[in-house]
Amino acid sequence: MNSLDVCLSPELMHLFDVRSKTVVVADILRATSCMVTAFAHGVKSIKPYADLESCRNSKTPDIYIAGERNGEKVEGFDLGNSPFEYMAPELYGKIIHMTTTNGTQAIERSKESARVFIGAFLNLSALAAAVQQENRDVLIVCAGWKGKVNLEDTLFAGALAHLLKSHFNFACDAPLLAEALYLQSKNDLTEAVSHASHARRLNRLNIFKDISFCLTADQYAVVPYLENGILRV
Amino acid sequence: MNSLDVCLSPELMHLFDVRSKTVVVADILRATSCMVTAFAHGVKSIKPYADLESCRNSKTPDIYIAGERNGEKVEGFDLGNSPFEYMAPELYGKIIHMTTTNGTQAIERSKESARVFIGAFLNLSALAAAVQQENRDVLIVCAGWKGKVNLEDTLFAGALAHLLKSHFNFACDAPLLAEALYLQSKNDLTEAVSHASHARRLNRLNIFKDISFCLTADQYAVVPYLENGILRV
Repeated sequence: MNSLDVCLSPELMHLFDVRSKTVVVADILRATSCMVTAFAHGVKSIKPYADLESCRNSKTPDIYIAGERNGEKVEGFDLGNSPFEYMAPELYGKIIHMTTTNGTQAIERSKESARVFIGAFLNLSALAAAVQQENRDVLIVCAGWKGKVNLEDTLFAGALAHLLKSHFNFACDAPLLAEALYLQSKNDLTEAVSHASHARRLNRLNIFKDISFCLTADQYAVVPYLENGILRV
Repeated sequence: MNSLDVCLSPELMHLFDVRSKTVVVADILRATSCMVTAFAHGVKSIKPYADLESCRNSKTPDIYIAGERNGEKVEGFDLGNSPFEYMAPELYGKIIHMTTTNGTQAIERSKESARVFIGAFLNLSALAAAVQQENRDVLIVCAGWKGKVNLEDTLFAGALAHLLKSHFNFACDAPLLAEALYLQSKNDLTEAVSHASHARRLNRLNIFKDISFCLTADQYAVVPYLENGILRV
């Protein structure tokens, strides 16, 4: 039986050998939720950038650039970090270059792995099926907040671990811990996350509609994956 | 109001500025539980060593050396890592030099802080009182297992955070997460930890008696602290 592990912060990535693993990257609020939403609405590809200026400089008339730092859209970028922006009809068939505080950094650190999937509550069941088909050890990487562990990504890791537990061995305590936390909160994830630091930090930005949407399971069946540095479905 | 935060692994210590903080180091299975037990039974001081050979070479007729790696006593050392060893009457008034896989490494990384306390379930209430008296921001450092997050240290962090929450603000999501996990399991910590990796890893070493003891709250009122590299009470 393959193993499943959870890396609760990108700062712990060096403890895991990802080369033969399927890695699922999750930045629930809100980078990977935006990515999944974008692909579900017909976006052709997303190129993640860890660095803000490289992303900004990649702008051409055919490319939409998306930039978020500290929870806010960066000035001069076409798109920010609300999933609702990624439902716009004009994005159909288009290319996005994206940089975010945590999510795109976590993708950067995962790219040595055999396969990188983009995970969110929004594509949870489709993702679980895709992970099983890959038939390798799995590492769920929580993007966290500037290196620190956060609640919403841990809850997601727990939800995915719970879905996959009959097919994988839990490799250490992190999946156990994440699953326990998820099972405790699953009937009202929004309530649980409303106490978390992300919600408190961004209160003034009126993101509760975003949070509620990002915690909704199985809105979409797309499973973005990384290929030569570019996300596709 | 001062803040309380939890560092779930020593590998995340660089994200926290500990210089003006009270740090509580916990390695529940079993280094800090052994330390608390030792002081409760009259040990005079404990000098933690991050390095095995330095600890071994510090042996003199007056000094007991304690060495554990990967859950087992190291050959040639006087003491291992079971709290019951530290109840021996002959240790009364004696000096111990100790090195362990995780706990003494976590102490090493905490020593820049304003105050280092040694925490365990065994001294939980006395520790909470001591932390409050210090009147500074608090960081609970979980020793984990070789850099990875573990269940028992997270549960301890949650128990202490829960005791202190009316006096401190939670600084980020880690205390929230640890507290939720503790509240879920507090009526049967031994059952919760029996599924954890430490218990599974050391099953063959018959440590269930140790685990059950190490998860018992308030056996002792001693609160060891670090002073010039040496633990005292």
